[in-house]
Amino acid sequence: MDSRLLADATSAIGVGIGVEAEHLPEVPADLRQGGEHSLHLYQRWANHYAQAIHAGVLQAQERMPSVREIRERHEVSHTTALQILRELESRGLIEARARIGYFVRSQAHAMPAAREPIELVPFDARGKGLESIGDRISDYLNKARLVGTFKADLGSAMPAPELFDASFLNRQAVALLKEQPNLLVHGPSAPFTHPEFQAAMARYALTFGLKIPPMQVAATLGNSEAVNLMLDTVTQPGDMVAIESPTFYGIVQAVEARGLRSLEIPSSPHTGMSPEALELALRTYPELKAVIVVPHLQMPQGATMPDSHKERIVAMCSRRGVALIEDDIYREFVEEPGVHRPCKAWDTDGTVVYCASLSKSFAPGLRLGWMNGGRWHDKVQMLKFTRSRNMPLWPQLLGARTVGTPFYMRHLARLRDRLHRQREQAAQAVARYFPIGSRLSLPRGGLSIWIELPESISTARLYDEALALGIRVAPGDMFSNTGSYGHFLRLSCGMPFTEAINDAYRVLGQLMHAQMGLPPRG
Amino acid sequence: MDSRLLADATSAIGVGIGVEAEHLPEVPADLRQGGEHSLHLYQRWANHYAQAIHAGVLQAQERMPSVREIRERHEVSHTTALQILRELESRGLIEARARIGYFVRSQAHAMPAAREPIELVPFDARGKGLESIGDRISDYLNKARLVGTFKADLGSAMPAPELFDASFLNRQAVALLKEQPNLLVHGPSAPFTHPEFQAAMARYALTFGLKIPPMQVAATLGNSEAVNLMLDTVTQPGDMVAIESPTFYGIVQAVEARGLRSLEIPSSPHTGMSPEALELALRTYPELKAVIVVPHLQMPQGATMPDSHKERIVAMCSRRGVALIEDDIYREFVEEPGVHRPCKAWDTDGTVVYCASLSKSFAPGLRLGWMNGGRWHDKVQMLKFTRSRNMPLWPQLLGARTVGTPFYMRHLARLRDRLHRQREQAAQAVARYFPIGSRLSLPRGGLSIWIELPESISTARLYDEALALGIRVAPGDMFSNTGSYGHFLRLSCGMPFTEAINDAYRVLGQLMHAQMGLPPRG
Repeated sequence: MDSRLLADATSAIGVGIGVEAEHLPEVPADLRQGGEHSLHLYQRWANHYAQAIHAGVLQAQERMPSVREIRERHEVSHTTALQILRELESRGLIEARARIGYFVRSQAHAMPAAREPIELVPFDARGKGLESIGDRISDYLNKARLVGTFKADLGSAMPAPELFDASFLNRQAVALLKEQPNLLVHGPSAPFTHPEFQAAMARYALTFGLKIPPMQVAATLGNSEAVNLMLDTVTQPGDMVAIESPTFYGIVQAVEARGLRSLEIPSSPHTGMSPEALELALRTYPELKAVIVVPHLQMPQGATMPDSHKERIVAMCSRRGVALIEDDIYREFVEEPGVHRPCKAWDTDGTVVYCASLSKSFAPGLRLGWMNGGRWHDKVQMLKFTRSRNMPLWPQLLGARTVGTPFYMRHLARLRDRLHRQREQAAQAVARYFPIGSRLSLPRGGLSIWIELPESISTARLYDEALALGIRVAPGDMFSNTGSYGHFLRLSCGMPFTEAINDAYRVLGQLMHAQMGLPPRG
Repeated sequence: MDSRLLADATSAIGVGIGVEAEHLPEVPADLRQGGEHSLHLYQRWANHYAQAIHAGVLQAQERMPSVREIRERHEVSHTTALQILRELESRGLIEARARIGYFVRSQAHAMPAAREPIELVPFDARGKGLESIGDRISDYLNKARLVGTFKADLGSAMPAPELFDASFLNRQAVALLKEQPNLLVHGPSAPFTHPEFQAAMARYALTFGLKIPPMQVAATLGNSEAVNLMLDTVTQPGDMVAIESPTFYGIVQAVEARGLRSLEIPSSPHTGMSPEALELALRTYPELKAVIVVPHLQMPQGATMPDSHKERIVAMCSRRGVALIEDDIYREFVEEPGVHRPCKAWDTDGTVVYCASLSKSFAPGLRLGWMNGGRWHDKVQMLKFTRSRNMPLWPQLLGARTVGTPFYMRHLARLRDRLHRQREQAAQAVARYFPIGSRLSLPRGGLSIWIELPESISTARLYDEALALGIRVAPGDMFSNTGSYGHFLRLSCGMPFTEAINDAYRVLGQLMHAQMGLPPRG
């Protein structure tokens, strides 16, 4: 790294697998002309370095300039120099090594991120028959069911059982049955959710900035049930619901299942749903009754919304009386330190419905979600009672006695560490085996990676080809109705990266190259 | 009992609390004139004795004539004489004492049954605001929640925890966690329901006449979820659904919650939904898309459909392509010996959707229901996945390993015995404390009794009055939108009949008499 950087960047030849001519970095306009005043100085310099890394000018394992070097070279303050490095770290481009300094992360990280979509795409599933995502997803799921077990399941975004402390949980479960011998034969009582669970979740929510009255916590069968109940509560068939594009297929299914129209809002792989596009949507479509966001590590792209976006989106929804359904299932997987406040933290009038779950973070086998329905809470709670009565008490008490304890927080830290390592290993396998021209979204947390393959590849076809070889993946067209993601792939990193998983990546790479008529790499 | 019976019956003075002048028995026309040829001879004689019992001509604890006496007195065959006694027994009017003979059951049984409704009542909840049953029920439930705990809860139809074998269940649960240590941390896999649970339920269903392929069994969060999923699957808002009148309030809530119109079909306290009325409804309303029946011990009246009605109703629905949603939650509580086949046993083309649950019969704390969606099974299974993914695995395995075993069958027999005793005790308390003119439906099985009080009594008012004294009941207007049941009451007999429960009946009687401006009885 030296002063040639600015001058040379425009002519540098891309290395790695992701760089094509049109993506070569230019000397940023804002650095040359002082434009883009909405960006802080540190962000502009961070963009500059990011482009250099993407372009291969700064190569993997190369040492970054120190804080002092940056300060002197760019004539910025000590604070700004520090911010530049932290910003690059938070984007996953560089990593700190204790007492040495920052280094550019491995080649995989230098792959360009998946492109950001630009159009608002309203979609009406009614009358589309087999074109609707619901049928497409049923088709994928049914094919997988026929196979039953997989050599490598890269399709399901769930941490492997060995990433949890099952023996702790089993001991707790047994102790609970000893303490309350009638737990399994006790019917539901008048409060629909166990008061101990309500109190524990309310207490835990305080630690990330939410003040929810315990009485207004409802236990649900995972957070899918919560999101579905809310859609039942605030929409009528024919209404429109704004969702991220691309988004978790379960959300699209939920919208379609009740004859609603989904409006896919462009969403960045870095910052999630575009507030500008949502504002436009709210102005354009009066039939828009709800917005669903996954604020942290949104699936499949892995975006986390900046606080400023959260605040703006809450205010927009509040102003127009539209329900903001916040599906905060991945908050605890965010790897950046600090408190990660959900949109609900900016809610002043009950506009935000908060849905969370212990399924991914604590115990998938309990199927325990929880929610606060904002100003619709009483209504949604009664609907929950109508549709499926209460959740069993045993998991509620297990959750109540664990979530938020020091044990739980240590478990989460370990879980994040292991997932981090597994994502890194997966990214390296992608870099090694997948075709030149692939682009990668490697989120700073969570259970999966998101890959844009060369456009000639069909991941729908890849799904069938891989399934026949015992490998399950999640093809891009599960996550959107726009037709834009036919060459995208979500791969789960929930399983330890074994030899078998590595083989699966190799085989996927072979199948991709075969689709392109090319010999395999790696 | 002697030959005076026929002659004296018309002038006998009613005893007990339930007999008014218009209910005095007459010498049946069919016995005098040989009419009513549709009834078997034994049924006509049984009716005759039943009227004598209702009229108090045959009093409680009185010994019935023996088979030989009946044979000689009425000049009927040995078989017919036996059938007469068995018919009276099955109606709950007499009981066998080993090696002695049959005896008239206690006074409570001589109360006339609740009247049978006669009109078809279509009801459209949309736009009715607070008039809708959903809001009325929310109101009742919310009032109860504010009270929290009760001195006597006669409102919830659930067996008390002590009626189950919790220690067996706990041992099974602990053994299961030892055998499968990852059970609580294992995520859902591709088949939505555990194959072991599917196989066990399919095997069990065979014992009562159902051939369901294991792959077509789906686990649900209680059977409420199953019924709701089916309504989602076969109806559109604005459609009509035929339900029993009166019926379990949860069913009315489910229909209303999705903007459907309910059509209440007259239902007998003895034989359930009237096939004639349903036939009329099917001819009259082309927008009728589903029929919901509870074939065994239907709540609140306690009716069990005769096989011939089941068969007719299945055929009717099949002919018109209407889904028959069978909520068979109380089959295992039927006390008559023999195999009790659900409607599904007569299903030849997937018209019948079968929903059942382990919540009432085995372990309320598991919240485990199961269903077969008939010809809509694939669709409903995908909807279940969309709405709430799978059920946790541990309750499925606990259920799979117990249901249908000899232990389970012995447990059911004990449970029925205890509930039988509790219902008898409750009926005696009703006879002792409730106003003259009350009428009682005392089902031959199940968790509750159903009482028609004098018309001047408002059970909605009684609900509030009793709740203020720590007693919860279920008022009649929870079970219908027809406005016909404002003086009816469902009382749960799930709790052991303690002094506190007896007190509650006494207090309820006092409140009723106060409403009528009369001094209390008993």
